[in-house]
Amino acid sequence: MRVAFLGLGSMGRAMARNLLKAGHEVVAYNRTRARAEELAKEGAHLAEHPAGIAAEVAITMVADDAALEQIVLGQQGLLAGLAKGGIHVSMSTISAALSRRLAEMHQERGQTMVSAPVFGRPEAAEAAKLFIVAAGPQQAIERCRPLFDVMGQRTFVVGDEPVMANVTKLSGNFMIASVIECLGEAFALGRKYGLEADKMLDVFTNSLFAAPVYKTYGAIIAQQKWEPAGFRLRLGLKDVRLALAAADAEAVPMPVASFIHDSFLSAVARGMGEQDWAALAKMAAERAGL
Amino acid sequence: MRVAFLGLGSMGRAMARNLLKAGHEVVAYNRTRARAEELAKEGAHLAEHPAGIAAEVAITMVADDAALEQIVLGQQGLLAGLAKGGIHVSMSTISAALSRRLAEMHQERGQTMVSAPVFGRPEAAEAAKLFIVAAGPQQAIERCRPLFDVMGQRTFVVGDEPVMANVTKLSGNFMIASVIECLGEAFALGRKYGLEADKMLDVFTNSLFAAPVYKTYGAIIAQQKWEPAGFRLRLGLKDVRLALAAADAEAVPMPVASFIHDSFLSAVARGMGEQDWAALAKMAAERAGL
Amino acid sequence: MRVAFLGLGSMGRAMARNLLKAGHEVVAYNRTRARAEELAKEGAHLAEHPAGIAAEVAITMVADDAALEQIVLGQQGLLAGLAKGGIHVSMSTISAALSRRLAEMHQERGQTMVSAPVFGRPEAAEAAKLFIVAAGPQQAIERCRPLFDVMGQRTFVVGDEPVMANVTKLSGNFMIASVIECLGEAFALGRKYGLEADKMLDVFTNSLFAAPVYKTYGAIIAQQKWEPAGFRLRLGLKDVRLALAAADAEAVPMPVASFIHDSFLSAVARGMGEQDWAALAKMAAERAGL
Amino acid sequence: MRVAFLGLGSMGRAMARNLLKAGHEVVAYNRTRARAEELAKEGAHLAEHPAGIAAEVAITMVADDAALEQIVLGQQGLLAGLAKGGIHVSMSTISAALSRRLAEMHQERGQTMVSAPVFGRPEAAEAAKLFIVAAGPQQAIERCRPLFDVMGQRTFVVGDEPVMANVTKLSGNFMIASVIECLGEAFALGRKYGLEADKMLDVFTNSLFAAPVYKTYGAIIAQQKWEPAGFRLRLGLKDVRLALAAADAEAVPMPVASFIHDSFLSAVARGMGEQDWAALAKMAAERAGL
Repeated sequence: MRVAFLGLGSMGRAMARNLLKAGHEVVAYNRTRARAEELAKEGAHLAEHPAGIAAEVAITMVADDAALEQIVLGQQGLLAGLAKGGIHVSMSTISAALSRRLAEMHQERGQTMVSAPVFGRPEAAEAAKLFIVAAGPQQAIERCRPLFDVMGQRTFVVGDEPVMANVTKLSGNFMIASVIECLGEAFALGRKYGLEADKMLDVFTNSLFAAPVYKTYGAIIAQQKWEPAGFRLRLGLKDVRLALAAADAEAVPMPVASFIHDSFLSAVARGMGEQDWAALAKMAAERAGL
Repeated sequence: MRVAFLGLGSMGRAMARNLLKAGHEVVAYNRTRARAEELAKEGAHLAEHPAGIAAEVAITMVADDAALEQIVLGQQGLLAGLAKGGIHVSMSTISAALSRRLAEMHQERGQTMVSAPVFGRPEAAEAAKLFIVAAGPQQAIERCRPLFDVMGQRTFVVGDEPVMANVTKLSGNFMIASVIECLGEAFALGRKYGLEADKMLDVFTNSLFAAPVYKTYGAIIAQQKWEPAGFRLRLGLKDVRLALAAADAEAVPMPVASFIHDSFLSAVARGMGEQDWAALAKMAAERAGL
Repeated sequence: MRVAFLGLGSMGRAMARNLLKAGHEVVAYNRTRARAEELAKEGAHLAEHPAGIAAEVAITMVADDAALEQIVLGQQGLLAGLAKGGIHVSMSTISAALSRRLAEMHQERGQTMVSAPVFGRPEAAEAAKLFIVAAGPQQAIERCRPLFDVMGQRTFVVGDEPVMANVTKLSGNFMIASVIECLGEAFALGRKYGLEADKMLDVFTNSLFAAPVYKTYGAIIAQQKWEPAGFRLRLGLKDVRLALAAADAEAVPMPVASFIHDSFLSAVARGMGEQDWAALAKMAAERAGL
Repeated sequence: MRVAFLGLGSMGRAMARNLLKAGHEVVAYNRTRARAEELAKEGAHLAEHPAGIAAEVAITMVADDAALEQIVLGQQGLLAGLAKGGIHVSMSTISAALSRRLAEMHQERGQTMVSAPVFGRPEAAEAAKLFIVAAGPQQAIERCRPLFDVMGQRTFVVGDEPVMANVTKLSGNFMIASVIECLGEAFALGRKYGLEADKMLDVFTNSLFAAPVYKTYGAIIAQQKWEPAGFRLRLGLKDVRLALAAADAEAVPMPVASFIHDSFLSAVARGMGEQDWAALAKMAAERAGL
C-alpha cells in the first residue's frame, strides 16, 4: 500500500521503517528534513510538505497538539493535501479536543480520520511490539489494519469515534502515573518502618501486581534510577494534563489524577522535569522527609 | 509439628485443614466452639481457651485488632499460655501499632512473634494458594516455614521485625484499593466519551496492566457486579484506615490513600458498606453524574 | 474625562452609569446594541464597534476570555481603534494567559494595558462599592484613578504588570470557593453529630471568622438556599479553572483548588450548574450521605 | 461558687485566676504541684488529687485525651471524687470519642458533663477574652454560666450533648488550618507571578476576608515568621487528626481536611513540628519550588 508517514521522531522513524520492511511504499515527511532523508536511503519517497504526499493513507506521529496542528492545518497542510476518501491515521498522543476538531474537519472534506495512539517506547516501536489503540469508522480501520499489523503486536479497536482511542490512551497514561504515585506512597510508608523497597516490590510483583507496569516502574523507583529518562517527567505532566482537560470538558471529576497533576507540577517546579516520570515517586518520599 | 490454630473463620478453617492434611498435629481454638468441633472431626484436638493449647507454635487468624487482643491479652490468653521459647504466628490483617505492641510483650516473656499476613481469599486458602508475607526473627521464621509451605503457594520474608510484614500487607491492600479507584476514574472518563468499560479494560489487561488485580477488579467494575461481596467495602475501609494509621504514626503523607479513605467513607455513608469493595469505583461514576 | 466603556452586562452597565453620574463623558459599546441604547438615554455616546470609540481610555467589562478576545482582537477591535498612548483598562475576570498576551500586544502598538478586575456583585457595582484590584504601569493607573474612585469603594494597586491583578482576583475567588468547601465539610461533620449548621455558623462568624465571606456564604449554606443564584456555580467552576490554569503555567501545585475544581465538576455533572456556587457545600453534605 | 480547676497550664492558670478575681472559691489541682502552689498564693485551695476537690463544679483544662483520661479515670480520679449531681466542665480540646465516653460514664454515676472548649490563646485567656463553645444539659450550662462569664468574652451554646461542643471546636480548628493552607496556595501562586504576599493580603483582609483569622495568620505567612510558635504545628496536626477521627466515626468524608492532615504530616516529617502551625503555608511554597 502507498502510505504517507509524517513525523519521524524516534517513534515515527521506527514505525515507518517497519512499514518499509513489510513492503509498503512509504512517502515520508518530517519538519526537519535531514531525518526524512535518512529514511529515503532505506527506500522511502520524500514529500516537500504535508500536502505533497499523494497517498490515500497518511499516518501522523508527532510530539504534541501544536505539532499536529501545524502539519494538518498549516499552510500546505495535510487537510488540504489529502484526497477525498483519504484516511488520516493520527497515532500521536494528543488532546481529546484536537482529536474531535480534526475528525470533524476531515469529515467536512470527505476525508476520514482514524485515531490510533500507541502504548510502547521506541524499543517497542523498533521491534514492532507496540500496542495500538484504534478508533474510527470500522471500514477505515480495516483498511489500515495491514499497516497496524506490521507496526504493533496487537491492535485494539475501542469504538467508532476517533476521540475514543485518544481518551483510552490518556486514561492508560493516567493509570501508569497512578501506579508510580501509589508505589511511591507505599514505599515511603515501608521505608519508615525499615522495609527495603525491593523486598516490598518482590511481594507485589510476584502476587497480585504481576504486570509489566509494576515491574518496570517498581524497579526504577526501588533503585532510585531517575536518569536517563525513558519517558521524561515533563511529558508525563503533559499527558495527565490532557487527561484532565478531557475530563473537564465532559464534567468528570478525577481527584487522583488531579493530585498526580499537582505532584508532577511540584516535581517540575523543583527541577525534575527532565528526569524519568517515575521520579513522581521521589516526591512521595520527600514529602515523608526521606 | 504440633501447632495451635486460633481463629477458625472462613480463612482460618481452610488454613488449619491444610495443616491437618499435611500431617501436622493441630490444636484448634475458636471463640464460637461449634466451628472448632467441626475441625475436631477432621482430627484436630480442641483447646478450651487460648492458654490451653500446649503447643510451641500458635497461629492466630482473626478478624481485627479487637479479636486478636482478646485472644492474646484476654483472660487465659495466648500470652499467658504460650511457653517460653514459643512462637506466636500472627496471620491476621492488623494494625502496625498492635503488631509492635504484641511483639514487645511476647519478647518480654521470652516468646517470639512472627507476623505473617496473607494475600488471598478463602478459595485461595482452601487451595493452599495464599501468598504469605512474613517478618520476624529469621530462626523463628525458618521454624515456621514447613507450616507456611502447606498453607500458601509462596512465602516472602520481608524483614526481621514483625511489623514489617503488617505494613507490607497494609500497603498491598492500599494498592489494590488504588487500582479500583483509578479504574473507576478512567472508566468514568471513558464512558462520558461513549467508550464501553470492558473495551478499555481489554486494552489495559492485555498490555501494560496484565495483572490479576486489574483483571479481577476490572471485570467486577465493568459489569457493575457489586454483589455478592468477595471482600466487603466496609473491610476495605478498615484496611485503608489501618494503612493511614501506620502512616500517621511515622509521619508519612499518603494523599491518594487519604482520598480513597474519604471515598470509602462516602460509600459507607450512602449504604454501600456491604457491597464488594470494588464499588469504590461506583463512587467515581456517581461523581461524574453517571 | 472622555472614556469608552465596552461591555454593558449587569456589572458594566452599573459601572458605566456611575461614570456618567460623576460627569465623565462616556462612549458606550455593547455587542447587543439595545443595551447600549439604553445607556444613550442617560447621556452616553454610542460606538458602532470597538474601534470607533475615539477615547484615550477604554474600559472593558465582559463575561470571559472569548468575549474579550472578540472585542479587542476581532475585526474593528479595540487594539486597532485605540490611539497610541491610549489605555485599555481590562476589568473582566480573565485568564492570566490572555492578560499577558493582550498586555504585550498593546505594548507593541504603543498602548498601555491596566488590569483592574473587581470583587463585588451587581448591587455593589450599582452602589459604587466595588473593590478594585489594579496592576499595570503606575502612571497609567494614576490616570485611571479618578475613574476607579467613582466605580468602587477602594482601589488596591498590587503591582506594575497587569497580570498581577488578574492573579490576585483569581486567587480571591479560589479563596471564596475554599471557604464554601470548608464550611460544607464542617457543617456535614456537625450535622452528623446533631448540630444545627446555623449554630455552628453563629460561633464562627462571631469569633475568628467574622468576615463578610463567611456570613454571606455561611447563611446560604445553612439555609440551603441554592436558588436564585447570586453567582452561578458554572461560573465558579470557570474561575477556579482559570486559577488552576495560571498555576499550571507557573508550576504551582494547588491541591485544595484542584479538589474544589473536581467537586465543582461533579456538581455540574449532577445538574447543579445554574445554582449558586455555594451549592458546592451541598456536595460535601451528599458525600456524607446527608 | 466553689469550683475546682484541674489543669494549670498557661491556659488553665489564666482562667483559674479570673475565677479567683471574680470572687469564686477555687480548689486547684495540677499534676505538677508547683504550679498549683503558685495559685495558692493568690487564694486558691489545693487538692492533693482530682478526687479530693470537694466541689460541685469541676473544670478541667489539659493538653490532650491522655491527660484528661488520667485526671478523670485514673486512681483517685475526678469520676470517683465528684459528688452525685456534680458537674464536670471539660474545656480541653479533646476527641469526640472521649467526650462521648466520659459523658456516658458521668451520667451513669448521676453526674453531669458539660463540654466547653474555647477559642483563644493564653493572652486571650488572661484578658478573659476567650470564646467559649458550650454543650450539655441546659440546666447544667446555666449553672456554669457565671463561671463562663468571667473567663470569656462570649459563650455560645450549641446543643444539649457535650460532644457537640467538641465537634464545633474541632471544626473551627480545621477551618483555621484551611485558611492557612489556602493562603499558602494563593501566595505561592501570586509569588510566581511576582506579587508580594502582603499586597495580596492587603486586598483580601480589606475586602471579603476582613476577619481576625486572615489578618493574624496572613501576617505570619507573609512575613514568614514561623518562630516563636503561637500554636505549635505539632498540635495543629493533632487537632486535625481529631477532626478526622470524629469524621471517620460518623462516615463524613472531609477531603480538604485529609489533605491538610497529610501536609501537616509532611511538615512534621521535615522537622517543622515546633514551628507555628502557620508554617503549613511554607509547605505550599516549597511544593511550588519557592
